[in-house]
Amino acid sequence: MRIDAVDFFYLAMPEIRDVGDGSQDMLLVRVLAGDEVGWGECEASPLTSIASLVTPMSHSACKPVLASVQGETLNDAKDIARISQRVRENSLDLLQAPHTYSGIEIALWDLLGKHLDAPVYALLGQSKAHRKVAYASVLFGDTPQQTYERAKEIADRGFRAAKFGWGPYGHGTVAVDAELVEAARAGLGDEPRLFVDAGTVWGEDVEAAAARLPALEAHRVGWLEEPFGTAAFGAYSRLAADGRVAIAAGEGAHDPRGAMNLIDYAGIAYVQVETGRIGGIGPSARVAEYAAERGIGYINHTFTSQLALAASLHAFAGLADSTLAEYPAEPSPLAAALTTDRIEPDADGTIGLPDAPGLGLTPTPANVRGYLMDVEIRVGDTVLYATPPLEEGAPP
Amino acid sequence: MRIDAVDFFYLAMPEIRDVGDGSQDMLLVRVLAGDEVGWGECEASPLTSIASLVTPMSHSACKPVLASVQGETLNDAKDIARISQRVRENSLDLLQAPHTYSGIEIALWDLLGKHLDAPVYALLGQSKAHRKVAYASVLFGDTPQQTYERAKEIADRGFRAAKFGWGPYGHGTVAVDAELVEAARAGLGDEPRLFVDAGTVWGEDVEAAAARLPALEAHRVGWLEEPFGTAAFGAYSRLAADGRVAIAAGEGAHDPRGAMNLIDYAGIAYVQVETGRIGGIGPSARVAEYAAERGIGYINHTFTSQLALAASLHAFAGLADSTLAEYPAEPSPLAAALTTDRIEPDADGTIGLPDAPGLGLTPTPANVRGYLMDVEIRVGDTVLYATPPLEEGAPP
Repeated sequence: MRIDAVDFFYLAMPEIRDVGDGSQDMLLVRVLAGDEVGWGECEASPLTSIASLVTPMSHSACKPVLASVQGETLNDAKDIARISQRVRENSLDLLQAPHTYSGIEIALWDLLGKHLDAPVYALLGQSKAHRKVAYASVLFGDTPQQTYERAKEIADRGFRAAKFGWGPYGHGTVAVDAELVEAARAGLGDEPRLFVDAGTVWGEDVEAAAARLPALEAHRVGWLEEPFGTAAFGAYSRLAADGRVAIAAGEGAHDPRGAMNLIDYAGIAYVQVETGRIGGIGPSARVAEYAAERGIGYINHTFTSQLALAASLHAFAGLADSTLAEYPAEPSPLAAALTTDRIEPDADGTIGLPDAPGLGLTPTPANVRGYLMDVEIRVGDTVLYATPPLEEGAPP
Repeated sequence: MRIDAVDFFYLAMPEIRDVGDGSQDMLLVRVLAGDEVGWGECEASPLTSIASLVTPMSHSACKPVLASVQGETLNDAKDIARISQRVRENSLDLLQAPHTYSGIEIALWDLLGKHLDAPVYALLGQSKAHRKVAYASVLFGDTPQQTYERAKEIADRGFRAAKFGWGPYGHGTVAVDAELVEAARAGLGDEPRLFVDAGTVWGEDVEAAAARLPALEAHRVGWLEEPFGTAAFGAYSRLAADGRVAIAAGEGAHDPRGAMNLIDYAGIAYVQVETGRIGGIGPSARVAEYAAERGIGYINHTFTSQLALAASLHAFAGLADSTLAEYPAEPSPLAAALTTDRIEPDADGTIGLPDAPGLGLTPTPANVRGYLMDVEIRVGDTVLYATPPLEEGAPP
């Protein structure tokens, strides 16, 4: 196959609220090769990623992402690795490039899987896709009471695990944070596993994070996620050495080595990879293997659509020992509408990939046409980007 | 002062060549507070950084960079630190943000320095700006002969040090690379110091890099720069342990902790910071201090304009022991035209900052008006960005 086109679609809810819900907008990616189609999704800031797709070259190591993809040959997994390497070299000094390319890389796997009639995990060399325990991933409520109610609803839906994050957590006192965690545990009940995500709120302040550990330990929180910025290895190591609560991090990594460095230098027990940021499924799978070899748990970071969820699961579906998966439990109407087929937890609270080629889920463009943003980027007399038609035969 | 406006200007040479010359385009930043003006410059991919300045919010931790700057108060250095922290929190998931904000932060220092009638290095708490030995930073020629001639010209201009990088280096055989280094040394003569920049060409391949060490040692190369990607700490450590040639890296860091991690985990002898990527002058100064405390050499990474050079020098002007500075020796006509006043090496090959408030150099917009790109970004019915007038009273 020859990659004929890479189309980006910026979709957004009519109102974007100032909360930590990453499912409020979406950059949907469509890759075309002859009659064949692959879909993917980038994480966050669609307009910035569109610009980096089409921007004029600054110099030999700062080219638009599109220049390294369009026209390339795609016949097997090695071609994806080769194209990824081209992007790395040609867009070395374009910081946004890994976020931009991640959605394209996912679409390349989807396209290749459909072409070869194989699921992506099989193309990655995995013989089986293991089911994972889905943990419902939601924001803390603004109050302990709201948090309690949200937790109770999650338990009622049959989830065996839940993660609460962002919102007020870490912005108030140690006592308020303890009440939030207590409320989450009370709402869930004794059985479900509970995790807490601090969203890098303490920067590098180890004492501030350590002050929260007694409450986290008391309510049997399985990990404290992202107390610090992704590069704060020293702070991570000192907190992890405390030993009372396991530490998780990694979603900020935009290349596989960044996530591996967290494993090697930061003392984390779980590495969490956002497939839509780290460069796609291939780099995610590389980190998953690295983690497994070192006895570190690998978890997907997913807070957006079911398409993104499927992409993230393929990367570690073959790992029997990584048994947990993040599950966006309260997606926006946009994220919920993208695909008709869905990955839903079974009665035992586990999720699995569909038995279908490629990613296994396919967007239904007609379902999201109302969210499509009309974008135009012009430099001089040249329109570098104009929103392409999302549906065949539709006006742009 | 109140920050009234942040204006971005995309300037570019009429033709951008596919070579590693980062001075072929420029994102010039102007910050206005009442009647007062500050100037700065971002490094690489102007269109992408423009988009990230004005992009609609994706969620609470993915806001446009402008939202954290416009309308803020600026009266002292603490205000700059506070605004920088706002950008970090509000644009945590917008990968391009540090590159975008770097030019703004530089302009904030320039504005504050002019307002307080003090040079930026003094606002950073430095009592004196030490002169530095300028090393001429150029690309390898396509052939050893071209490299020889370029080196000879540099020596004739009186430089006491030079760095050659990119071009064919690392893309051919070990023998060809040795010839390039030999030619650079032959052209410079015995006295000048020589450095080599591999531009991350070997990825993580320690053996490929190690194979070049004998020639580098034989021709007394002071450091081998960026043999690997910025996050490849393990590869860096193994190569540094060889000990024959000092290793330098850091220009890829987009936050200060990333550069500090190279010091702590990668075994480098010199840390090189691009002020236009790492978040501006404040974070650069933080890395400089960290390096000095650990006996690691701090060097600016600068390959663009004199304005960028001035910004990078302020960050470590106070460090007497960091005696070298990268000097863009073959800037594009655009980069050369930006400022009328210039930092030029003295007869002893050293450079120093002008004795003037702020950055000490000021752009002359009329000199670069012919390079200004007319850009428009529209989302729905809203024009989010249109190139503003660069000169007072001029049409946009």
